[in-house]
Amino acid sequence: MPLSSYRKFDAALAYTVQAVERTMERLLPRGDAGEARVFEAMRYSSIGGGKRLRAFFVLASATLFKVALLPALRTASAIEFVHAYSLIHDDLPAMDDDDIRRGKPSCHKQFDEATAILAGDALQALAFEVLTHEDTHGDTAVRAALVSELAKASGAHGMVGGQMLDMLAQTHRTDLSIGAITRLQRLKTGALFSFACTSGAILGKAAEPMRSALGGYAHDLGLAFQIVDDLLDVEGNVVELGKTPRKDVVSGKATFVSILGLERARAQASLLAEQAAGHLEPFGNAADLMRQAATFVVTRRA
Amino acid sequence: MPLSSYRKFDAALAYTVQAVERTMERLLPRGDAGEARVFEAMRYSSIGGGKRLRAFFVLASATLFKVALLPALRTASAIEFVHAYSLIHDDLPAMDDDDIRRGKPSCHKQFDEATAILAGDALQALAFEVLTHEDTHGDTAVRAALVSELAKASGAHGMVGGQMLDMLAQTHRTDLSIGAITRLQRLKTGALFSFACTSGAILGKAAEPMRSALGGYAHDLGLAFQIVDDLLDVEGNVVELGKTPRKDVVSGKATFVSILGLERARAQASLLAEQAAGHLEPFGNAADLMRQAATFVVTRRA
Repeated sequence: MPLSSYRKFDAALAYTVQAVERTMERLLPRGDAGEARVFEAMRYSSIGGGKRLRAFFVLASATLFKVALLPALRTASAIEFVHAYSLIHDDLPAMDDDDIRRGKPSCHKQFDEATAILAGDALQALAFEVLTHEDTHGDTAVRAALVSELAKASGAHGMVGGQMLDMLAQTHRTDLSIGAITRLQRLKTGALFSFACTSGAILGKAAEPMRSALGGYAHDLGLAFQIVDDLLDVEGNVVELGKTPRKDVVSGKATFVSILGLERARAQASLLAEQAAGHLEPFGNAADLMRQAATFVVTRRA
Repeated sequence: MPLSSYRKFDAALAYTVQAVERTMERLLPRGDAGEARVFEAMRYSSIGGGKRLRAFFVLASATLFKVALLPALRTASAIEFVHAYSLIHDDLPAMDDDDIRRGKPSCHKQFDEATAILAGDALQALAFEVLTHEDTHGDTAVRAALVSELAKASGAHGMVGGQMLDMLAQTHRTDLSIGAITRLQRLKTGALFSFACTSGAILGKAAEPMRSALGGYAHDLGLAFQIVDDLLDVEGNVVELGKTPRKDVVSGKATFVSILGLERARAQASLLAEQAAGHLEPFGNAADLMRQAATFVVTRRA
C-alpha cells in the first residue's frame, strides 16, 4: 500500500518505518568475512529505533510527484544512513560523549571507538553508493543531482559545519545569540532535513517553484523541530527519548530554550510549524500528510 | 603542459603534485565563518605533503584516452580527498594512534580529536560533491559511475573494511597468513588504488578490455606498493618517511616482511611490479610513464 493511500500521519509514519527499514536491511553489507564487525555496527546503528521522520519526508514529497516507491525508499534509506552515521560520530567520546542512543548503548559503547568511527565512515559511503545505483532512478542526471545535494547537505557547508559550530560553542562556552543558534541548527540538522523534503521534487523532476515551496516548508519545520528537541531536552525523560535528557542544561549550552524560555520557545515552534504548512498550498489536498507531519513535529513527546 | 608531454616519471610526478594541489586548493571550503576551524583542518591534512601517487595514476590513465585535463584533475582531487580523510581517521588515538603524518603533527594533534573526525567526514562528502559537478564530466552517466566506483572502493567492501581487518588483527594479535594479509591490503589500500588507475578509462568511456588491463596493473602494483610500505617500515627513518617507522615491528603486527623476510619480500615486490607493467602492453608507448611508475613504486625510499 503506497504512502498516498494513508489518510492519517501516524499510520503513514508506521508504514514508513517498516518499509524503509526493510529497504535499508537489504542495502546494508552482510556476510561473515573477517571485517563483518563493521557490517554489524552499521546495522546496529541504522536499523531499529529512530522516528524515520526524514524518510517520511522523502516518501511524502515523492508522492506529490507520483514518484515510484522503490526510488523513494532508496533515497530515504540513503538519508537515514547519513543520519545514522552522524549520530554515531556525534556520540563519540571526543564529540558529545553520549552512551545512549535510540534507547540502547551508543555504537562505541556496544562495539568500540575504532569500530564506531569506521561504521560511520562506511555508512556515509554506502549512502552515495545507493544513490548512484540505477534502481534509484533511470536518469543519471537525477542520480547525479541527488548525490550532489546530499554531499552539500552533509558536508562542511552543511551538517558537519553545524556540528563543528556546536563543538566550538561547547568548548568555549560561548553565549550564542538567537541568530547564531539558528544558523548552527540550520547547518547541523536543517540541511539534511531540507534535502529530505525536497528530494521528492528532484526524483520527480518537478519545476523549480514546487521545489522551492518544499524548501520553504523544510526551512521552517526544521527549525521548529530543533526548538522542540531543545524543549524535550528540558522536559523529557530517558525512556521516552531513548537518549540522555538535560544534557544541554547540565553542560550550560545555549539553546532556544535557554534564551527564549520554555513559554516563548513553545510558541515560536508552533508558529514555525504553521508557517511551514503555509508553504504547502500549491499542492492542495495531496500534501495533507505533510501538514499533519508539521503538527506532529511540534506535539511529539520524543 | 599536459602530463602526456613529460617523458620522465620524476618530472611528471612533480607536475602532478603542483597541478592537483592547486585544484584541491580551489575545491576546499574557505571563509571566516564560525565553523572555519573544520575548513582549516581539511586544508591542513590534504594540502602539502603526500606523494600524490593516486593523483598521478588518474592523470596518467586519463592521458591514455585523451581525457581533458580539468576532469582528470578534479577526479584526482576527489581521490586525494578520500585518501586524506582515511589518513586523518586512521591516525586517531582510537585507531592507529599516530602523532606524525606527512612530516608534521597529525590532524588530531594539530587541532583536536573532534575537529579531526569532522574534517575527515567533510573531506569524504567533498569528494563526492566534486565528482558530481558538471565540470568533472559533461556526461551525467560518467559522473554517476565515478561516484559509484569511489563509494564502493572506499566503503565497507573496500578501504573501510580493510581498516577494520587491520584493527582486529592488531587487537587480537592474530597471526595472519599471507593470504589474509593480501586480502586485508587489497581492501585497505588496493581498492582506492585500483579506482585511481581505472578512473581514466571511466572518464574516457574506454572499452571494457582497456579498463580491465588497467585493473590488472593496479591489482599487481597495489600489492607491490604495500610490500614496499612494509619494507620501509623496517628500513626507513622518520625524516624520509614523514611518519613513525618501526610501528609494525614494535606492535608485533604481521606484515609481508614479518612473514616472508626482507629478502623474499623485496623479490616479491619486484616481481609484482614487472607483472603490473605487463598489463600495459595494449597501450604501447603511451603508457611509458605508468611503466616508470611501476619501477618507482618498488625503488622509492619513502
